[in-house]
Amino acid sequence: MSYQTIKYEVADKILTITLNRPDELNAFTVEMAEELIEAFGRASEDDEVRAIVVTGEGRGFCAGMKLNSDGNAFGLNEQLAPELSDMANLEEAPAGVRDSGGTVTLAIYNCTKPVIAAINGPAIGIGATMTCAMDIRLASNKAKFGFVFTKLGITPEACSSWFLPRIVGMSQALEWVYSAEIFDAEEARAGRLLKSLHESEDLLPAAYKIARRIADNTSPVAVALARQMMYRCSAMPHPADAHRVDSLAIFYQSLEDGKEGIQAFWDKRPAEFKSKVSQDMPEFYPWQEDS
Amino acid sequence: MSYQTIKYEVADKILTITLNRPDELNAFTVEMAEELIEAFGRASEDDEVRAIVVTGEGRGFCAGMKLNSDGNAFGLNEQLAPELSDMANLEEAPAGVRDSGGTVTLAIYNCTKPVIAAINGPAIGIGATMTCAMDIRLASNKAKFGFVFTKLGITPEACSSWFLPRIVGMSQALEWVYSAEIFDAEEARAGRLLKSLHESEDLLPAAYKIARRIADNTSPVAVALARQMMYRCSAMPHPADAHRVDSLAIFYQSLEDGKEGIQAFWDKRPAEFKSKVSQDMPEFYPWQEDS
Amino acid sequence: MSYQTIKYEVADKILTITLNRPDELNAFTVEMAEELIEAFGRASEDDEVRAIVVTGEGRGFCAGMKLNSDGNAFGLNEQLAPELSDMANLEEAPAGVRDSGGTVTLAIYNCTKPVIAAINGPAIGIGATMTCAMDIRLASNKAKFGFVFTKLGITPEACSSWFLPRIVGMSQALEWVYSAEIFDAEEARAGRLLKSLHESEDLLPAAYKIARRIADNTSPVAVALARQMMYRCSAMPHPADAHRVDSLAIFYQSLEDGKEGIQAFWDKRPAEFKSKVSQDMPEFYPWQEDS
Repeated sequence: MSYQTIKYEVADKILTITLNRPDELNAFTVEMAEELIEAFGRASEDDEVRAIVVTGEGRGFCAGMKLNSDGNAFGLNEQLAPELSDMANLEEAPAGVRDSGGTVTLAIYNCTKPVIAAINGPAIGIGATMTCAMDIRLASNKAKFGFVFTKLGITPEACSSWFLPRIVGMSQALEWVYSAEIFDAEEARAGRLLKSLHESEDLLPAAYKIARRIADNTSPVAVALARQMMYRCSAMPHPADAHRVDSLAIFYQSLEDGKEGIQAFWDKRPAEFKSKVSQDMPEFYPWQEDS
Repeated sequence: MSYQTIKYEVADKILTITLNRPDELNAFTVEMAEELIEAFGRASEDDEVRAIVVTGEGRGFCAGMKLNSDGNAFGLNEQLAPELSDMANLEEAPAGVRDSGGTVTLAIYNCTKPVIAAINGPAIGIGATMTCAMDIRLASNKAKFGFVFTKLGITPEACSSWFLPRIVGMSQALEWVYSAEIFDAEEARAGRLLKSLHESEDLLPAAYKIARRIADNTSPVAVALARQMMYRCSAMPHPADAHRVDSLAIFYQSLEDGKEGIQAFWDKRPAEFKSKVSQDMPEFYPWQEDS
Repeated sequence: MSYQTIKYEVADKILTITLNRPDELNAFTVEMAEELIEAFGRASEDDEVRAIVVTGEGRGFCAGMKLNSDGNAFGLNEQLAPELSDMANLEEAPAGVRDSGGTVTLAIYNCTKPVIAAINGPAIGIGATMTCAMDIRLASNKAKFGFVFTKLGITPEACSSWFLPRIVGMSQALEWVYSAEIFDAEEARAGRLLKSLHESEDLLPAAYKIARRIADNTSPVAVALARQMMYRCSAMPHPADAHRVDSLAIFYQSLEDGKEGIQAFWDKRPAEFKSKVSQDMPEFYPWQEDS
């Protein structure tokens, strides 16, 4: 697979996905959406990938959707009049209706590997909302953010109404969405969108340090399950729903990587986990329909 | 419509709702509840209103429910023995049972305009919980807060169990509800109930500044949709539920205000959005039953 | 009831549950799980208990699950191959499958009394996740924390995927779960897992101060309802779901402890609430099935 709008580079168990349209500050296109979906799906199945770092080539992270100057600016099919019932089964939704940002963030949601955003420059519109589906966000002091939708006459997208309040709380989420203004990295950090700020040259090393810890020390299948459990079970109406999944996760892990993990703990040596996400996810996964 | 317990004043696209029973620190009455419900409903449909600021007349914001000295203190019908099944359809719930605070916060929830609380003084009981359904809370240094219910032998109300943990997290919410004590504005800010603290004379200007930015720069229908999306979609079990709504929101906005917004962006001029919430909300709105 | 692994001590309306296997830093055993479930259930019904403080004997809070060296490390029945459908009715789930940590946190979830963790030393694995189901967490400067599961080849448990993001937000939750490392009390406080840090000798007094305020000033039934409302209603899809419960809670409390609370308020004297959780919980409680 060769990509036109992103780079996909695996080194020492860490995948770096680089948004790669630097002449346009990595503005998001339908092609980029398709490539990102392919890349997150491929990474999910690639046992050489233990963690993912997402960054942008050049000065920008992602300057937002590249708008068409002909026809519908977002490439949507203006002949249609879709209703909510048309979206019930997303696989069968009419072409030219689905929000392309959301197709990417749902692919990230379903990914079995931790996703760390290393936001090197402006992250605007889909450039900002895309990162909300990533697990941990680090940024350079040069990063800027903007949930600029309502200034453009449109609404937030990419499932950001689901992801953003989980990260920063409801009031901060609404404040940024209402203002639609560009804000700097320090405001993003103070508002808890970011874990930490870095000098430009220190950003990727900081992201790789987090990824390295995961890649070197943890069970691949356990991490894949944990990621899905945190997002999915936290949205259930009752903790017993989490308990059902917890119980099976612990049960099956105790038969596999758990044995090595515990033996290594007793032996005071690093564990050598053998599980592969590509083939060893337990039968009960995924425990939830995905659309 | 003239109001007895509130003031409803629109100036330059911003509605100020002032709780207006200053002789009793704006204590909440059934009449005030009815007027607030009417006011938020009216503001939802009034295209001259782009954002709402809520404040209190005089020294207080709202000192809590005015308790009846005759009969049931809350005006409830003590002859009844309601069950949860009686509440299934709220429109048909028996008179004298529904929590009046909740009828107001549900009206705020359904409002199509951003709501900014400018808390000028004590906000106690329903005075505090009412603000939890507002989007952004600013306060004067003289504000005080108290979720005082359990000290009065009653429970939190006004849907605060739904709103408060979304703003401040579960532990802080429980802590304030358990202590039932009055706390000062600085504690409220540190606990993330408030965006910011202000000198008394700077409070309304700060609230208007936020409202002004919305009124001057954003699409009315896009903001209305965004507000409802943030509250409703974040409470859904799966981000795909947000994606369904996002897709239709972007689709229909791209046909209307989105065209102007993008043209203005290209032209490097302010957009002039023409949409009216009173008549231009897309067909799929609201996408969720409301009771 | 005498306990082997915990202490259950009631003094002046406050129950202290002390994890009491100090020779093993209070490592968690199946027996401890059973005793904790019994203790939280007993406390729910014991009208002499108005609030609960949980701490550890000796240097530790809880150093994690005591792992079996024979057979399955977690005591699970390796002969089984459970499916999610086997867990639908938890009461009928096969023996040797349910996560024992989750059985404890579900007991805490169902408890009618506020639960304050006084974390005196290392809280690792189940020692950390157990505290996520408690309402307020205080810690000594000597406390340490670790969501160490993925390093051991297993996943987070004890319904922590449901509880932890509600306390610290999704990104911080994922960060600790991915790193699986031990971190100190200051990091836990900065990440909002803890309300406050204390010198060792000041920890229990600080926890008792919070408990005392509840025990001396508030209605037992109102607090029990409030606790359940905050956890349960916040996880519902719509604030109207909270309103249904709020309305009945206020209604029935206004007939009982509410009368005394309001009279005491008018009389400017402390209220003397007579309600007993053991017998006065209103009919509509619990309003939700529990498994």
